[in-house]
Amino acid sequence: MDSTQLFAQIRQKGSFLCVGLDTDPQKLPACLQGTEDAMFAFNRAIIDATAPYTVAYKPNVAFYEAEGVEGWRTLERTVTYIRERYPEQFIIADAKRGDIGNTSSRYAAAFFGKMACDAVTVAPYMGEDSVKPFLKDYAGKWVILLALTSNKSAEDFQYIPDVQGEKLFERVIRTSQAWGSPENTMYVVGATRAEMLEDIRRIAPDHFLLVPGVGAQGGSLEAVARYGMNSRCGLLVNSSRGIIYADSSERFAETAGAKARETAEAMRLMLQARGLIS
Amino acid sequence: MDSTQLFAQIRQKGSFLCVGLDTDPQKLPACLQGTEDAMFAFNRAIIDATAPYTVAYKPNVAFYEAEGVEGWRTLERTVTYIRERYPEQFIIADAKRGDIGNTSSRYAAAFFGKMACDAVTVAPYMGEDSVKPFLKDYAGKWVILLALTSNKSAEDFQYIPDVQGEKLFERVIRTSQAWGSPENTMYVVGATRAEMLEDIRRIAPDHFLLVPGVGAQGGSLEAVARYGMNSRCGLLVNSSRGIIYADSSERFAETAGAKARETAEAMRLMLQARGLIS
Repeated sequence: MDSTQLFAQIRQKGSFLCVGLDTDPQKLPACLQGTEDAMFAFNRAIIDATAPYTVAYKPNVAFYEAEGVEGWRTLERTVTYIRERYPEQFIIADAKRGDIGNTSSRYAAAFFGKMACDAVTVAPYMGEDSVKPFLKDYAGKWVILLALTSNKSAEDFQYIPDVQGEKLFERVIRTSQAWGSPENTMYVVGATRAEMLEDIRRIAPDHFLLVPGVGAQGGSLEAVARYGMNSRCGLLVNSSRGIIYADSSERFAETAGAKARETAEAMRLMLQARGLIS
Repeated sequence: MDSTQLFAQIRQKGSFLCVGLDTDPQKLPACLQGTEDAMFAFNRAIIDATAPYTVAYKPNVAFYEAEGVEGWRTLERTVTYIRERYPEQFIIADAKRGDIGNTSSRYAAAFFGKMACDAVTVAPYMGEDSVKPFLKDYAGKWVILLALTSNKSAEDFQYIPDVQGEKLFERVIRTSQAWGSPENTMYVVGATRAEMLEDIRRIAPDHFLLVPGVGAQGGSLEAVARYGMNSRCGLLVNSSRGIIYADSSERFAETAGAKARETAEAMRLMLQARGLIS
């Protein structure tokens, strides 16, 4: 999927919502506990209920890996389900991978070859040759590079300035622009750092940003849109726990759908205020 | 496994060799191609042939993930095989993980709970709260934090000095020492940067270092030992391609064993020269 198609989806749905599938077997509604592949059944119900209000899904790979072989199967089933049933959705493997070249190639094969994800999140610490393999052989696929993350300890290294005063996350964004383009690279910027979006837009005016941390982590959607939206929206705002675990009763999917609709309605107003939709 | 047990293994075998299981289905010997779970059959033969000369195995998770569910099963089988057959071996999941706290907890569950690995490699970019979950609930388990990696692009970010002149990888090593101890934390330092080991030993005199990059990547074992060895060895030197793909004939395992023995013999001389074994 290219950025024009993604923006078209955002306009059509009046939403830039990404639903995070951080599916934890311990947190499934009682009605699903003990059923066959309950994680997949949960995901399918959540996806069906939220798809009208959503442009992207982001399975958090850790939650599937923790279940071993069965979890990996559930992850593959989930990606396949979205790809077949909702081909317009942008699928992000939230995997935070990154390794030397020949190894990153194998991670790319996992998420872009074996699975039909559109994007994978990648940690920048190892530099260009650890990121390039995700871009090289996969037209229409995306790297989403960690820049400024939503957790408290982001301050440990990401904020450290060099001798010219450039912070590490700013250098990551600036340097990595030479590795790809706004057609295959996005950046993770936590909603908990929304005030930094203004600075980031000076370095990367055109790139899409994946913004986690709205909801359970305390970030504000309104601040993210104010500081981060560009002329093609340029934002995918993720919500995981606030949507998928909003209700633990048998009506969990209905409630998740209502939460997603509510978020999308707020997003529609923000898109309208910017004149991006009528 | 604690550091005393690890050092005891090193003394007993006269080796600080780690064999990297970067098992690529495309590179298996012809005699294994097309057989049932050929990746596992390859690993088992390599492990049986090299175990006498080795103190650690390091499956590179990417190569298994790239094969989907079947690959993940092969990874689990491989870890179980080593754990049951060679319980004295230190098993490193080379996974380069790291995410916000609740997500890192799930990665820890994958490698320390579902699988019986001793250690997992972790990327430091997201800081303390992304690393701590690997240490918190798992006594005797280890984090191996990326510090100075063996790839060329390590220079993109890891070498950047701050205003006091401290390079990012130095700050990672210094800062992260407060998160754990030499009993649960190691650092990745590429053999291609062996001259930096002297500086690193000033910051982290007691920690074990995992050193990849000897062999195919061009690093020198002799330089690594000269600059990096401490009073309890403090080194695990990894070789992957140089051992496991040394021979593509039916005698692949025998040749891998011979290569591992040859490396271990060189290591024995280095340990003797330091007076760590007699």
